[in-house]
Amino acid sequence: MTDDPDGLALVPAVGMVGAGQLARMTCQAAIGLGVRFRVLADSAADSAAQVCADVRVGDYRSLPDLLAFAAGCDVVTFDHEHVPGEHLAELARAVPVRPGAAALRHTQDKLAMRERLTALGVPCPRYERVSDLAAVTAFAAGSGWPVVLKAVSGGYDGRGVWVCQTPDEAAQVLAHPVAVFAEEYIDFDRELAVLAARSPHGQAAVYPVVQTVQRDGICHEVLAPAPWLKARQAQEAQRLALQLAAELEVTGLLAVELFETPQGRLLVNELAMRPHNSGHWTIEGAQTSQFEQHLRAVLDLPLGAPGAVAPQAVMANVFGGADPGVYGRYLHVMAADPGVKIHLYGKRVRPGRKIGHVTVLGDQVDELRARAGRAARYLATGED
Amino acid sequence: MTDDPDGLALVPAVGMVGAGQLARMTCQAAIGLGVRFRVLADSAADSAAQVCADVRVGDYRSLPDLLAFAAGCDVVTFDHEHVPGEHLAELARAVPVRPGAAALRHTQDKLAMRERLTALGVPCPRYERVSDLAAVTAFAAGSGWPVVLKAVSGGYDGRGVWVCQTPDEAAQVLAHPVAVFAEEYIDFDRELAVLAARSPHGQAAVYPVVQTVQRDGICHEVLAPAPWLKARQAQEAQRLALQLAAELEVTGLLAVELFETPQGRLLVNELAMRPHNSGHWTIEGAQTSQFEQHLRAVLDLPLGAPGAVAPQAVMANVFGGADPGVYGRYLHVMAADPGVKIHLYGKRVRPGRKIGHVTVLGDQVDELRARAGRAARYLATGED
Repeated sequence: MTDDPDGLALVPAVGMVGAGQLARMTCQAAIGLGVRFRVLADSAADSAAQVCADVRVGDYRSLPDLLAFAAGCDVVTFDHEHVPGEHLAELARAVPVRPGAAALRHTQDKLAMRERLTALGVPCPRYERVSDLAAVTAFAAGSGWPVVLKAVSGGYDGRGVWVCQTPDEAAQVLAHPVAVFAEEYIDFDRELAVLAARSPHGQAAVYPVVQTVQRDGICHEVLAPAPWLKARQAQEAQRLALQLAAELEVTGLLAVELFETPQGRLLVNELAMRPHNSGHWTIEGAQTSQFEQHLRAVLDLPLGAPGAVAPQAVMANVFGGADPGVYGRYLHVMAADPGVKIHLYGKRVRPGRKIGHVTVLGDQVDELRARAGRAARYLATGED
Repeated sequence: MTDDPDGLALVPAVGMVGAGQLARMTCQAAIGLGVRFRVLADSAADSAAQVCADVRVGDYRSLPDLLAFAAGCDVVTFDHEHVPGEHLAELARAVPVRPGAAALRHTQDKLAMRERLTALGVPCPRYERVSDLAAVTAFAAGSGWPVVLKAVSGGYDGRGVWVCQTPDEAAQVLAHPVAVFAEEYIDFDRELAVLAARSPHGQAAVYPVVQTVQRDGICHEVLAPAPWLKARQAQEAQRLALQLAAELEVTGLLAVELFETPQGRLLVNELAMRPHNSGHWTIEGAQTSQFEQHLRAVLDLPLGAPGAVAPQAVMANVFGGADPGVYGRYLHVMAADPGVKIHLYGKRVRPGRKIGHVTVLGDQVDELRARAGRAARYLATGED
């Protein structure tokens, strides 16, 4: 103990690769739990790097940077899925990496994810690997147009999913040197998400199923729980998330994004293995926030209760507008609604960039959507 | 903007003098609000200094240290009341200081507090300045023994309050070179506390009245709201806190500790002007935590809703035991009760030292006390 006068060695250190808002909110949870927390940031100005006491600046694509970062950490986890798989495997020789490379592969390679889920009998949209327009056209003969093309991993121009209305549009995507597969276009009623946590011991916990309201493929609102969802469907979605967490051997959080079809079927759209935008409502709205839950899971601590503390929560994302003076608009938003919870991420404002979120708790989903939407809109633009 | 590529100048910086657990929990709230936060720590190992991204090490009794700390802060506030009054006045020439020296004096000079409260007609125990044993004996002729002697400010041996059963015990206190006053001993039924916030604009908000359960003058438990308190008494306590916040021109939080007598009278015992142990339950239990509320108040932002989110909350402090391995006991506590919220302060464990707290929310105060007490006891000692 002589070289540890403050007893800090008695608590573990969690290293999170990435220093965006997910790491920032995980940092808040780590402070509460009293565990040490370190982030690997691209720059000292990153969202989490501004507020974390232990920041390392480095490149998550560099194995030496990753290894230097991990030295002294008891476990390494992630606020994004972009660390190359071969680095993950090397890193795991030095320190426990949670989730591990084998699990994370299902978020990095969307075709591998589809193949695995199909093998598990999990309902997904029809899909097929395609390498030329003839294959896309043949696929469309079965499912019709539009056809969704998805990059197996990565993409171009910041996108990895293209909804192609015509063969011409598909040809434009195929003209890029990116491996893609075709997926049937699902004319869904709405999108749902369900968040589970799983620990290395295999304990699992699942949160209430939520509805995500997307515009142009970007999440704008989360309604927790998903209103008017049949109990049978909610149970099916939760069972699915727990099954996938176990089968894919996830350690930490697993977010499953789902389509609900007009016939009431649930199809898996995407997976993420980290805190997720669809779970921000849990900070105020659940007994255990997703950020604390992720820490508990990767530390192999018993998981916290995932139940809601209010009948309904609504979260709305705040996107940058033309005027960067978001803080200056706190005055109005806070005066207008003393119950709205504001989270600002410290990110430089650019039009359309996600810079924060707001959450409100209560009973009536319509009233809460109006309140959250108004606060988010006013923070972004100053317009009521 | 060229010298502020990340737009941080658009949000204010709050400086908190002191880096104990109150600053640590305020740091968590500052991260959520997206405001910058700096602490003045005695050492880099202080509770808040371990987790805060902007730590200055210095002496709060040194005016140069305070001024250097305040440079670049938009407002300075405190996690304790020990900054000398003359320094506060100087500091206020450089930066807004909230609460101000005139308000803080009522927490630094207990006799001045009693005199001011008496002038305001606020019910307090009988008191009288005493300088020798004859004066104490004369005072006791009115109120009887025991007599409480209180240091006007400070104290000795880490104490400032002495309950003297006999003239001999009083003589021992008087033998020290500490100015004291005598106070009638209140044979109270229980102790209550009420927390209000007030902004420079004069907006105020008040939390539900809580019961504090003390042993040997140290808070062990907080029951929020205070069980079975008559509505009339709760209103009186809240009105009193709001009155005092306004009359004393408090900016930030004001905690009022009260005695409830067997006759149902409420007498003011102590005041504090900072986040307070009696308000830790608000992190999970209220719509706005006391830490966020304090930041909103000192930043002159509209205050948040102070209402409870559950019918009952119970907070129990965790005190150090013989074995410093508190983290190692998370496993049992979390497995035994997935709903308990643990807060550990990163403080080196010493027997009897306050090192954290736990909170549980629910309906039945007895059940919640049992759960919180068990978790706190087990964390401290490993005994069920």
